[in-house]
Amino acid sequence: MAAQRVLIGGEWRDSQGTKTFTAFDPKTKTAIADAYPVSPWSEIETALQHAAAASRAVRNWPAERFAAFLEEYATRIEARAVDLIAIAHQETALPVTPRLKDAELPRTINQLRQAAHWAREGSWATATIDSAANIRSQLEPIGPVAVFGPNNFPFAFNSIAGGDFAAAVAAGNPVLAKGHSSHPGTTRLLAEEAQLAAQKTGMPAGFVQLIYRTSHADGTKLVVHPALGAIGYTGSRSAGTQLKTAADAVGKPIYLELSSINPVVFLPGVVTQKAAELAEQFAGSCLMGAGQFCTNPGLVLAVAGSATDAMITDIAQRFTAAPVGTLLGEGVLQHLSAGVQTLVKHGAKVLSGGHPGGGMGVCHQNTLLSVTGKDFLAAPEALQTEAFGNASLVVIAADADELLAVLDHLEGNLTGCIYSATDGSDDALYDRVAAALRPKVGRLLNDKMPTGVAVSTAMNHGGPFPATGHPGFTAVGLPAAIKRFARLACYDGVHPGRLPATLQDKNPTGTLRLVDGKWTTADVATK
Amino acid sequence: MAAQRVLIGGEWRDSQGTKTFTAFDPKTKTAIADAYPVSPWSEIETALQHAAAASRAVRNWPAERFAAFLEEYATRIEARAVDLIAIAHQETALPVTPRLKDAELPRTINQLRQAAHWAREGSWATATIDSAANIRSQLEPIGPVAVFGPNNFPFAFNSIAGGDFAAAVAAGNPVLAKGHSSHPGTTRLLAEEAQLAAQKTGMPAGFVQLIYRTSHADGTKLVVHPALGAIGYTGSRSAGTQLKTAADAVGKPIYLELSSINPVVFLPGVVTQKAAELAEQFAGSCLMGAGQFCTNPGLVLAVAGSATDAMITDIAQRFTAAPVGTLLGEGVLQHLSAGVQTLVKHGAKVLSGGHPGGGMGVCHQNTLLSVTGKDFLAAPEALQTEAFGNASLVVIAADADELLAVLDHLEGNLTGCIYSATDGSDDALYDRVAAALRPKVGRLLNDKMPTGVAVSTAMNHGGPFPATGHPGFTAVGLPAAIKRFARLACYDGVHPGRLPATLQDKNPTGTLRLVDGKWTTADVATK
Repeated sequence: MAAQRVLIGGEWRDSQGTKTFTAFDPKTKTAIADAYPVSPWSEIETALQHAAAASRAVRNWPAERFAAFLEEYATRIEARAVDLIAIAHQETALPVTPRLKDAELPRTINQLRQAAHWAREGSWATATIDSAANIRSQLEPIGPVAVFGPNNFPFAFNSIAGGDFAAAVAAGNPVLAKGHSSHPGTTRLLAEEAQLAAQKTGMPAGFVQLIYRTSHADGTKLVVHPALGAIGYTGSRSAGTQLKTAADAVGKPIYLELSSINPVVFLPGVVTQKAAELAEQFAGSCLMGAGQFCTNPGLVLAVAGSATDAMITDIAQRFTAAPVGTLLGEGVLQHLSAGVQTLVKHGAKVLSGGHPGGGMGVCHQNTLLSVTGKDFLAAPEALQTEAFGNASLVVIAADADELLAVLDHLEGNLTGCIYSATDGSDDALYDRVAAALRPKVGRLLNDKMPTGVAVSTAMNHGGPFPATGHPGFTAVGLPAAIKRFARLACYDGVHPGRLPATLQDKNPTGTLRLVDGKWTTADVATK
Repeated sequence: MAAQRVLIGGEWRDSQGTKTFTAFDPKTKTAIADAYPVSPWSEIETALQHAAAASRAVRNWPAERFAAFLEEYATRIEARAVDLIAIAHQETALPVTPRLKDAELPRTINQLRQAAHWAREGSWATATIDSAANIRSQLEPIGPVAVFGPNNFPFAFNSIAGGDFAAAVAAGNPVLAKGHSSHPGTTRLLAEEAQLAAQKTGMPAGFVQLIYRTSHADGTKLVVHPALGAIGYTGSRSAGTQLKTAADAVGKPIYLELSSINPVVFLPGVVTQKAAELAEQFAGSCLMGAGQFCTNPGLVLAVAGSATDAMITDIAQRFTAAPVGTLLGEGVLQHLSAGVQTLVKHGAKVLSGGHPGGGMGVCHQNTLLSVTGKDFLAAPEALQTEAFGNASLVVIAADADELLAVLDHLEGNLTGCIYSATDGSDDALYDRVAAALRPKVGRLLNDKMPTGVAVSTAMNHGGPFPATGHPGFTAVGLPAAIKRFARLACYDGVHPGRLPATLQDKNPTGTLRLVDGKWTTADVATK
C-alpha cells in the first residue's frame, strides 16, 4: 500500500521518502494499517520554501484575513467531529467520553475561535507611536513557524490545530506542522480541513503544511533553517533539548514545553482537617487519563505525622483500587517504567503498583511511591525524574524547614499547588511556602489540583526551565500566547504611505495602541 | 596601592581577589593609576547570595519603591555630573562636548526617570484577570539581573546606570553589575551614587552591587547560577556568544546586543537627485564618535552607475579629509584593524584609509572600502564581518536584482536604512527592498542615518540574531524594555488576601489591566 501523502505547497503530494511508519492501537497493541512517510530533507526544504513564499504573500494582510481562516477551520473541524473522534480514539486510546468528544475537541474549536477574536482585537501587537519623533513600532509576524505536536493531546495541542498552531496563525504566520508519530491519522484529517479552510478563505499555497516524521538530523536542520521564523515544540525533554540547543546556536526563537512534575504541597493543617478529601482529589487528578497530562501532579509534599501517614495510606489504597488506564503507546510505557525505576533506585519506596501491566492494552499499574525529605535532599535531581503517566512520588518532610529545603531544590515547573486549612492554622507557613514555590512555577494554585488548564485570558501554561525554554511566555491563554510568534518591528521616519495600516495615524479598527505615552483606541491627533 | 573596592551586600569591600587591572587613557596611551580587582568566584557567589536575598526582600513591593530609587539616583547623577564627565572623558576619550556632557549624561538621567515613570504606570506587566474562573496573571520580577556593560557608552549603557539597569530595576529586580574594564572609574562613581540612592530610599543591601572583572570561566558560572534571574549583555559577539551558550543550556533568559553592521541602501533615484547630501550625511554618521556606535552604518548598498561612482568618490574624499577620532582603547583598534583586513582579504578594495594611526592616541584611519555585488555574493559571511569603528564597506550591485540578492544574504541587524528619491522614481524598488530588509532589521529607517537612538516609547534597539539573541525584545525604549526582566506568573484560585496588589479586584493605582477580556483601568466589577 502506498504511504499517505504529505501536504506541501497547497497540495497533497506523494512523499519522496522511502521509509514509512505506522500508528499503533494501544488498546489492541496492534499496528494500524495506514503507512505514513518519513519525509527526506529535500521534501522538508521544499516545504520551507513554500512557507517562506506564503509568509511574504501575507505580509501586511489585515488581521481579519487570519481570523476568517481560523473561524472557517473551526467550523470545519466541528463538522468533521465524528471522524476525528473515532480515529483519535483508535490511535490514542483516550476515552471518547468524557475526554475527546466532550472536552478536547470543543476546547480545540474554542481555541481557534478565541485566536480569531484576539487576532482581530490586535492589542497583542502593542502598537506604539511616538508622533513627535515619527517613530512607530509593533510586534509583527516572525515568519513561518514549525510546530512539533506532542503525543498526549491529539486535538488541543495538535501540530496543525492546537494552541501553538492557533497562536502562530493569529500572529499572521504560516505553519509547517510536524505531526506526532503516535496519531498521524488524526493529524491527517485535521490537515485536510485546514487545507480546505485555507483554500476557501484565500490563503496562499503553503500557508498550512504537514509532514509526519523526519530523521533527528533533519529535525535539527529544520529548526535552524534561515527561512524559519520560530518553533513551537511540545514533547519529551530529551528531544526538545536537542532542538533547543540547535535553535539557540543560531538565535532562533524556540518555545518549548518539556517536562514538569507539578508539585502539590499539603500543609499540616489541611491534612488534619480533611485528609480523605485531599486523597480523593489527588488520586483523581493523578490517575485521570492515565496521568498523561503535562500538569499531572507527580510530586506531593507533606510534613510527617500521623495524619499525613493516614492520608498517604488512603491514597495508596485508592491507587490500588482504581482501574488502570490504557497508555498512549509503548514509548510512554517505557518512559514511565524507566522513570519509576529511577525513583526506586534513588530511595523511593513503592506504596502501590510499581510495574507495567494491570489493565487493558499498553498499561502500567497505578503507582505511588514515597521518600523522606532527607532522602530527597540527598538526590534531589534524580528524584525529580519525570515519570509521565499514572505515577506520583510523595515526599514526607520531617518538619516545615525540611519542606522548605525540598522546595528550594525544585527545578522549574508548569504548576505548583498549595493546600491550606480553612481555619488559618496554615497561613504563616503558607507565606513561606508560597515565597519559595512562586519563582519555581508558572501557575500557582490554591486548594485545587493542576490538571485543568482552562483556556483563559489569564492562563499561564509555562514556567521556568525545564518546564519550558523561557519563563516569560505561555503556550495556553490568549492573547498572551500569540506574542511568542512575533518580532518587534520599528519604523523610524518611514513615510506615512509605507507604514503598516496598524501604525498609521488613523485607527479604523479601534485597536488599543500606545500613542505619545498614553494607551488609546483613538486616531493620532492631527497637529 | 590597594585595589579599589567592590560593592557587595550594601557595602564597599576590599576584594578577595589577588589580580588587578588598570584602565587606560586612550589619548595618551598610558595607564591610569587606580588598580581595580578581578573578583574571584567566592566573591561573585557572595554577591549572588546578597542579590537573591534582596530579591526576596523586595518581592511584592509596590512599583512606587523602585520608582523612588530610580528618581533619587537620577538626581544624584545630575549632582555629580562634573566628576562623572571628567573621569569618563579620561577613560574613553569621548568628547565632553557634544557627547558626554550634552548628550549621553542627560540621556542616562532621562532614562532613569522614564523607567521610574513606566514602573509606576505599570502597563508593562499586562495584568490579566479572569474573574469568573478566578485566574489571574501578570509579568513579575524575574529575580536578580546580571548586567554586563559595553565599552562604548560609559553612562547610557553602563552596567550600573544604563538602559538594562534601569529596565531591570523598573521590573523590580536587584542588579549585579559587571562593569566594563575600559571605564572602571566611571562605573565606580556611578555605583557610589547608586548605593547612596539605595540607602536613602530604603532598598535592601545587595539591591545594587558592582564587580569590575571576572575570569571568563567565572563569567560563565555567573550566568548559569540558580540565584540569577536573567542577564543583560552588551558587547562583543564572541564573548556574548559564549555567555549565551551557557545561559541557553540552563534555560536562563539572556538578552544580548552583539553585532550589527546596519545596512544603508541608497536607491538609484535618490543618488541621482542628491549625491552630495547623501555623502555628507553618511560620512558624518559613520565617523561620528570614531564610528563606535552599535548602530554605526558599516555597510552601504547602491546600484552601479556614474552617479553612484561620483557619490562614492565624494564619500572617500570626505573620509580622507575628516579628522581621525581617538578610539576607546587598544582592544577596539585591534578588532577594527582585524575587521578591515578580513574585508580586504575577501575582495574589498580600500578607497580611503585602511591602516591604524592618523590621529591622536589610539586611532585608525577613517576607512572606506568597496566591493562589487558579485564579489559580495561570493563571500557574504566574511564580508559582513563587523569592523567596529570608523570604517564602512560599500557594496556596488550591478542592478536592482543583484541588490536584492545581497539583501537576501544579510544577517540580522539592529537597523536598516533606505533612502529614496522624492519624485517617486524609487517607489517601486523601495517596496521590494523594504520587503527584503524588513525581516532582517529591528528598526527600518527612511531617509535618515541610524546613529541616533532616541529614547522613545516606540524605539526598537533590537533585531534578529546576531544583532541580539531574540528579535522580540528591545534594549532601548520604555516600557517595552522592562518586559525582558520579567516572568509570567499566574494565580489560579489563589485566595484574595494572598494575591499581589496589582491583581486584586481593586485597582487603586489605575493600572491598565485586561479584565474579563476588556482592557480597563477600573476595579473588577462586584458580582
